[in-house]
Amino acid sequence: MALDDKEIGNLIGSDKVEGTAVYGAKRQKIGSIQRVMIDKLSGKVSYAVVSFGGFLGIGDDYYPLPWQSLKYDTSLSGYISGITQDRLQSAPKYANDAGWNWSDPARAKSVDDYYGIAFT
Amino acid sequence: MALDDKEIGNLIGSDKVEGTAVYGAKRQKIGSIQRVMIDKLSGKVSYAVVSFGGFLGIGDDYYPLPWQSLKYDTSLSGYISGITQDRLQSAPKYANDAGWNWSDPARAKSVDDYYGIAFT
Repeated sequence: MALDDKEIGNLIGSDKVEGTAVYGAKRQKIGSIQRVMIDKLSGKVSYAVVSFGGFLGIGDDYYPLPWQSLKYDTSLSGYISGITQDRLQSAPKYANDAGWNWSDPARAKSVDDYYGIAFT
Repeated sequence: MALDDKEIGNLIGSDKVEGTAVYGAKRQKIGSIQRVMIDKLSGKVSYAVVSFGGFLGIGDDYYPLPWQSLKYDTSLSGYISGITQDRLQSAPKYANDAGWNWSDPARAKSVDDYYGIAFT
């Protein structure tokens, strides 16, 4: 599979998003996207599951971030997040070896509430 | 990674969509999703790249289908497509070992035109 096939123009293959770097406000690499969560019915990407392990020294946990909070930067070929290490300290997360129950509305709501983004 | 983590409720992980079965109008399995193409800026899933190889006897080619043309069926745990074998014969496609140039607007337009779906 050629790179051209997965990341061109405004479209990117889902398997290419997985692994794409996430940069902080100072354009330093802070993590990478593990997967995105897609609404099966609307086709809208709701969350990106980001691992910050090894970058911010916070362990290899997975943080669901609202997709809208990530801005794609073409010059970096990655996503910029305004999230800070302090902000992540108390953010909803799950461990590498544990699941996140997306069927529990309270879990998704906790993410939306924490980041102050309302979903319709 | 537990299944619970990737396919629950209305949300599905991108790595779980990849490989999800596609069913025909008669609810027979006709293919599987290789990846979805996500608009980097809007976060909207535009196309699903589907392989029908081995199901319809049309070779292992990849067909970009408009995402809206696929309807998720919870009882099948897969997507239903109204596409017919005849319709696929002349549909835009690319071979397994060849890329599809998503940067060429004419290529994407050919898909939209073929399936009669207007994107805004």
